[in-house]
Amino acid sequence: MYSEKMYGYGAKSSIIREIFSYSQARAAVIGKDRIYDYSLGNPSVTAPKEVQEAYRHTLTDMSPLEVHGYTAGPGDMGTRNAIAEDLNERFGTDVTGANIYMTCGAAAALKIAMCALYEEGDELLTLTPFFPEYEVFSESAGYKFKPVTSEYGTFQPDIAKLEEAITEKTKVLLLNSPNNPSGVVYTKEKLKAVARLLQQKTAEYGHQIYIISDEPYRELAYGAEVTFIPKLFRNTIVCYSYSKSLSLPGERIGYVCVQPEMEDADKLYLAVCGAGRALGYVCAPSLAQQVIRQCVKVRPDLQPYIENRNLLYGELTRIGYECIYPDGAFYLCVKAPDGDTERFCEKAKKYDVLMVPGECFAAPGYVRLAYCVDHEMIKRSIPFFEMILEEYRA
Amino acid sequence: MYSEKMYGYGAKSSIIREIFSYSQARAAVIGKDRIYDYSLGNPSVTAPKEVQEAYRHTLTDMSPLEVHGYTAGPGDMGTRNAIAEDLNERFGTDVTGANIYMTCGAAAALKIAMCALYEEGDELLTLTPFFPEYEVFSESAGYKFKPVTSEYGTFQPDIAKLEEAITEKTKVLLLNSPNNPSGVVYTKEKLKAVARLLQQKTAEYGHQIYIISDEPYRELAYGAEVTFIPKLFRNTIVCYSYSKSLSLPGERIGYVCVQPEMEDADKLYLAVCGAGRALGYVCAPSLAQQVIRQCVKVRPDLQPYIENRNLLYGELTRIGYECIYPDGAFYLCVKAPDGDTERFCEKAKKYDVLMVPGECFAAPGYVRLAYCVDHEMIKRSIPFFEMILEEYRA
Repeated sequence: MYSEKMYGYGAKSSIIREIFSYSQARAAVIGKDRIYDYSLGNPSVTAPKEVQEAYRHTLTDMSPLEVHGYTAGPGDMGTRNAIAEDLNERFGTDVTGANIYMTCGAAAALKIAMCALYEEGDELLTLTPFFPEYEVFSESAGYKFKPVTSEYGTFQPDIAKLEEAITEKTKVLLLNSPNNPSGVVYTKEKLKAVARLLQQKTAEYGHQIYIISDEPYRELAYGAEVTFIPKLFRNTIVCYSYSKSLSLPGERIGYVCVQPEMEDADKLYLAVCGAGRALGYVCAPSLAQQVIRQCVKVRPDLQPYIENRNLLYGELTRIGYECIYPDGAFYLCVKAPDGDTERFCEKAKKYDVLMVPGECFAAPGYVRLAYCVDHEMIKRSIPFFEMILEEYRA
Repeated sequence: MYSEKMYGYGAKSSIIREIFSYSQARAAVIGKDRIYDYSLGNPSVTAPKEVQEAYRHTLTDMSPLEVHGYTAGPGDMGTRNAIAEDLNERFGTDVTGANIYMTCGAAAALKIAMCALYEEGDELLTLTPFFPEYEVFSESAGYKFKPVTSEYGTFQPDIAKLEEAITEKTKVLLLNSPNNPSGVVYTKEKLKAVARLLQQKTAEYGHQIYIISDEPYRELAYGAEVTFIPKLFRNTIVCYSYSKSLSLPGERIGYVCVQPEMEDADKLYLAVCGAGRALGYVCAPSLAQQVIRQCVKVRPDLQPYIENRNLLYGELTRIGYECIYPDGAFYLCVKAPDGDTERFCEKAKKYDVLMVPGECFAAPGYVRLAYCVDHEMIKRSIPFFEMILEEYRA
């Protein structure tokens, strides 16, 4: 009498959330300082001072009716113009507010973009490893979801495998760089090769293939250049979120950008509006939109993440673990010493070190450590990583 | 290359929004004081002082990481418990936080409830007049949407017509009292008759029929009793929003309540969680959740709406218009003098009086006036209503 499909999505709870719940219960027993929880991608850096001040000013300076009132469905035009201007300055694009659709975070942006593009029979490809909700969003939008295995050990796109996977039915390639869960930033060369391949396949099959670029970690890169994909491939829809960059994950604020030079850009933008409407998104939260309008140029303080990355990567490789060097985001993939991630996670759990098995992300043989944590926690956890590896050597 | 269906939802823009845009453009030309805009249901009463203070306190007293961090998918447990307690106190229910799922407003709540219940072939009924988005939400969820005509002149449920409309495929009856666009509050007798009919039909067809009760106007009733429908009919999902009651329409905060005594309540609740997940709702906006936790017992200041209702209804009937007496919400249905609403709206527009034709809400022959406006605007508009009626008499 209810939808079995939706029940399935609700009942099969996320392993990450389960570990997090275990962590909270365990912390209540042995104390927070003795839990080494690397499970959750919740920013550990406080929202920048400018953002906190924008919240206060907005509530003081604007009338409550204005602050908390409906905005237009696609969002406040002042906010959208400010975002467009910032994109143009940084990436040399020709975006206007009319190309921006404000969303309740990246999840909503992805779901809306997928629904706006979907036609009967379409397939959606993504590269491993990937955020597990991609499968839920795309399948429930109607797509056949097809993960494409990336190069093992680097998690860069495997162009040959991608070529094999593309069929007449391929409508979307969903990319995520900097990547969750690997922290890998795709190189410009690889992305150029991806773009060439999609252009070639578009010509071959005579219909458009789109990139949906999921960019919540765009600002979280530690030296490596994050290529702005629309500059390489015209038919790219950008999905952005301020969750990680401005440490506002709970506020659900982000956007979809439909580049003006995309084919049928105006109609596609209306399809985005229509998808948002049909999915029940009336407008993105209005106060958060006002804050973003004032903070489009604010960038996160990366120093804590860089220090965490350097400490964790440095120590784990020194001890003898095999890790994939993360250029961005706040995730590190560590290889299970004998390839058995379940065993690795179980061993770690005995020392109250909590990690997520890579199988959740189609990264078999690896575990994911989210290092958006207290720096001291990382330090305290290192001896346990040594003991865990000792166990394998014993 | 994009979804024609979503393009359709995006391109066919809402007439209400169109009138509102016209109003803003016209106001820029002739001045705001000379426009009599009755088109939009945006609360004209400022958010209560307690709500404004809760916003400020939350940002000052809680750490930004806590305020702006992810909550659990179904929402912050403190907020959910507070809502459950308030419902129990007011309606004698046995709800707990585990029955509440926080949403991005009523639109999200409705869409999520519809998706949680939908099985192939299901039909959804609603009573005329109705909020036009009901059709968009239910159709895009898969339902066949079937409006049932209400009693003409009172807009109370027509039990005979409802009985005719129910078939083996009927899964949901969507109710909205106090009603948008009529302001009518369904009487307890009528709702009891609806409940009896659904029970009888459930027995007859051997499968459950559900009520989805859309209650954004629950607190906006001016004397008439608003019946809490789950007390009359067990299988009722309540969809609530703080948009109108606390004047926070842009903040997108509301909830779904799955009563514990519903059939398969636990599984249905998981289906609600799954639908929220699949639709891209990660959690309801976190700051707004904290504000609601502190303000569940705050009620709106109804006096301005009562004064507006009395003035507008009193004057229009005095002049000679036929109106449906509104017991709640902030809408009034006025009959077009010759039954032609398009002509009525056009005549009014000449005097810069802006109204929405009832055809938008399946209320032919009527126009909707949203009286959530400045009291003085109503006063200034009355002479124009007299002139309009004079034109018909000439």
